[in-house]
Amino acid sequence: MVASLYNQRHQVVIIGGGFGGLYTAKALAKADVDVTLIDKRNFHLFQPLLYQVATGTLSPGDISSPLRSILSKSKNTKVLLGEVSDIDPKTQEVIMSDRIVKYDTLVVATGANHSYFGNDAWKEVAPGLKTVEDAIEIRRRIFSAFEAAEKETDPVKRRALLTFVIVGGGPTGVELAGAIAELAYKTLKEDFRDIDTSETKVILLQGADRVLPSLAPQLSKAAAESLEKLGASVRTKTRVINIENNVVTYKQGDEIHKITSKTILWAAGIQASPMAKILALRTGVECDRSGRVMVEPDLSIKGYKNIFAVGDVANFSHQNDKPLPGVAPVAIQEGEYVAKLIRRRLRGRSVPPFKYNDYGSLAMIGQNAAVVDLGPIKLQGFFAWIFWLLIHIYFLIEFDNKLIVMIQWAWNYLTRKRGSRLITGQESLALAKVITHQPTMEKTVKA
Amino acid sequence: MVASLYNQRHQVVIIGGGFGGLYTAKALAKADVDVTLIDKRNFHLFQPLLYQVATGTLSPGDISSPLRSILSKSKNTKVLLGEVSDIDPKTQEVIMSDRIVKYDTLVVATGANHSYFGNDAWKEVAPGLKTVEDAIEIRRRIFSAFEAAEKETDPVKRRALLTFVIVGGGPTGVELAGAIAELAYKTLKEDFRDIDTSETKVILLQGADRVLPSLAPQLSKAAAESLEKLGASVRTKTRVINIENNVVTYKQGDEIHKITSKTILWAAGIQASPMAKILALRTGVECDRSGRVMVEPDLSIKGYKNIFAVGDVANFSHQNDKPLPGVAPVAIQEGEYVAKLIRRRLRGRSVPPFKYNDYGSLAMIGQNAAVVDLGPIKLQGFFAWIFWLLIHIYFLIEFDNKLIVMIQWAWNYLTRKRGSRLITGQESLALAKVITHQPTMEKTVKA
Repeated sequence: MVASLYNQRHQVVIIGGGFGGLYTAKALAKADVDVTLIDKRNFHLFQPLLYQVATGTLSPGDISSPLRSILSKSKNTKVLLGEVSDIDPKTQEVIMSDRIVKYDTLVVATGANHSYFGNDAWKEVAPGLKTVEDAIEIRRRIFSAFEAAEKETDPVKRRALLTFVIVGGGPTGVELAGAIAELAYKTLKEDFRDIDTSETKVILLQGADRVLPSLAPQLSKAAAESLEKLGASVRTKTRVINIENNVVTYKQGDEIHKITSKTILWAAGIQASPMAKILALRTGVECDRSGRVMVEPDLSIKGYKNIFAVGDVANFSHQNDKPLPGVAPVAIQEGEYVAKLIRRRLRGRSVPPFKYNDYGSLAMIGQNAAVVDLGPIKLQGFFAWIFWLLIHIYFLIEFDNKLIVMIQWAWNYLTRKRGSRLITGQESLALAKVITHQPTMEKTVKA
Repeated sequence: MVASLYNQRHQVVIIGGGFGGLYTAKALAKADVDVTLIDKRNFHLFQPLLYQVATGTLSPGDISSPLRSILSKSKNTKVLLGEVSDIDPKTQEVIMSDRIVKYDTLVVATGANHSYFGNDAWKEVAPGLKTVEDAIEIRRRIFSAFEAAEKETDPVKRRALLTFVIVGGGPTGVELAGAIAELAYKTLKEDFRDIDTSETKVILLQGADRVLPSLAPQLSKAAAESLEKLGASVRTKTRVINIENNVVTYKQGDEIHKITSKTILWAAGIQASPMAKILALRTGVECDRSGRVMVEPDLSIKGYKNIFAVGDVANFSHQNDKPLPGVAPVAIQEGEYVAKLIRRRLRGRSVPPFKYNDYGSLAMIGQNAAVVDLGPIKLQGFFAWIFWLLIHIYFLIEFDNKLIVMIQWAWNYLTRKRGSRLITGQESLALAKVITHQPTMEKTVKA
């Protein structure tokens, strides 16, 4: 932390432009430091709304903002697009494929991915929802399933095409199930001629004894009831034991059940990003079962006062006995805390340990239905939905004046339009090539 | 055209859900016929705004509407997702990979692609702009070029990264050049730290002696001046003779010029879709140099009163000496004409030959600048821009209440936000995988 002879400022390097990393950078905008934010993508993704891209209500662009434009006013901040392959705490270097970046303080905010609990073969058949590409792939699968069902004449195959299984009853699972149910029973109702989309089955498999276990039990109950009312089926205390050949096998108590489904989505389990392992290897810090880095009360890494981990990559267990949940507000507050700590430390001052202010949790189930848990205040139904909407507008506009997006979203939602129901991607491209082949000779003779 | 014993209605089959096919279907919504619309994509694309996706202003979902939802109220219309591999005019069948569809009347509206004039190797290095995937790929290239320039220290390589060449000075080329110039000189101005985006070069190569040759000369002049004012460079009477290793070689008079550029975009030449060739093979109809089917005055195929071609796949040369231009209004009017002809024919009546009503042409150059040619009325600058906006709002809302999109678009435009500057796609996915590798042993020893 000694300023160089050439009057170089304190160098803060942040890895990851999600909520944790971005809010660290934003909170350092006016500090007397140079900030380098490294991300492999050029945009920040508003992940809480990613399921809406996966189900065709919003476009990827609606929930993404270029990191450069969010930070363009922060003249002390540089955005670097690229991959971090390693870090060296001794020389205080971040190693990228094409360069080495020196740091005085390092903030690791690389997030988490899904965990298939060792069954990595399920990844292909039951994709999770973390990236824009995931969302586009899931959107492709959902809408292609309806398209294929419209063409299918075999009733058994048609049933498999119209069956959607979501594994995991946390917020993402609940929101996906609600959105797909709404799609099938409302939005697409008039769109097909040979199938009745109301025959669709949406099944949510949850391991715990209730959905949204991080919320109060009464809200879990309300959420499950809303889902059932929409037409989805919620099955708790289940354990998926196999996914193969379009069949999900799960245990419920002693019973073994099988569901044949062409569209299986994964919303269970998390695993810290690979950066956590690198950090552990280089600093000797402990990781939890999900691979998350155990952080000190000030979010630093044990033995390294100038390395911090924030957001989903970190396990902060100093407040309650259990780690803080992997949600945006935690990452934001952690990022802002670390920025404050850095600013104060440069002025020779200290800060008290990090404390998360839990303003509540919320999940959207469908049109006019959400659940909100603010501790003493618990909302469900229409008012919860309005609250959900306002909170998301507030955070979206924070970084890109996206009020208009929320208006569009609300408009689409109320009119049940799904403007972004595009089936795009590799397979549709492959299909597009098929048509360029020449008519066969046989046909030529015939004509 | 004999109704079957089982009281089957007249079957109209439309291949292609672009402007031509979609407007044929819409105009048949209340006719006493069954309509089957076949497309390989599940959405209609508002192609006139595709360049805005390519340059990061709009998202693909903003300019796409699901065909099923546009036609959900047309209860006589069925949308079929799939590929047509052949047609048989004798048995009146359309052959798809998984089924055969019988028709009484066939409307071919399969559009056109770019033509590289026999230099198909240029396709990879100089992509054209026809599909959503094209737009996303071009967007990826444009924004990746700026990102790479920010990291590049070699001034020669940096110059190549900051040089954008657009081949073709029709509406798409002019609009792309204007949008990229605006991006470089305005939108991205504050976003980078190591490069000055105002050093960017945007070069438009046009074969004819002026840009927008289908408009009045005074508007071509206005468009070229607007482009130059924005900072783009317009070079007319040029002929590209090679594109290789990031170098565009072109002739201007007797001089040969070379431009080194990492981002070369193709907006020249058109070639009818492969369906035109199949149609020619099966019916013996003539095609023009661009592969377009020569149609009769009523848009039918010579010798086949129940087969029609509309839009970019057709060459209608009965009005002037030259074929009608490949623009949306022509396709729309042709589609509506054929629908009217079918409706009347079923009632034993006839219609006069097709006549295109040219309400004018328009092109957008940049913020507050467009050119509009309405024949007697010619607009340029701000009023042309407002006019351009109103026309596009009108047509967009026609099929999906997308007023909100245009508001968003205008908002982004006025605030110079580019919310959809996402770099996504295959390469970014490949990059994303890199980070998962383990630190090397060498590094492990070091730590």
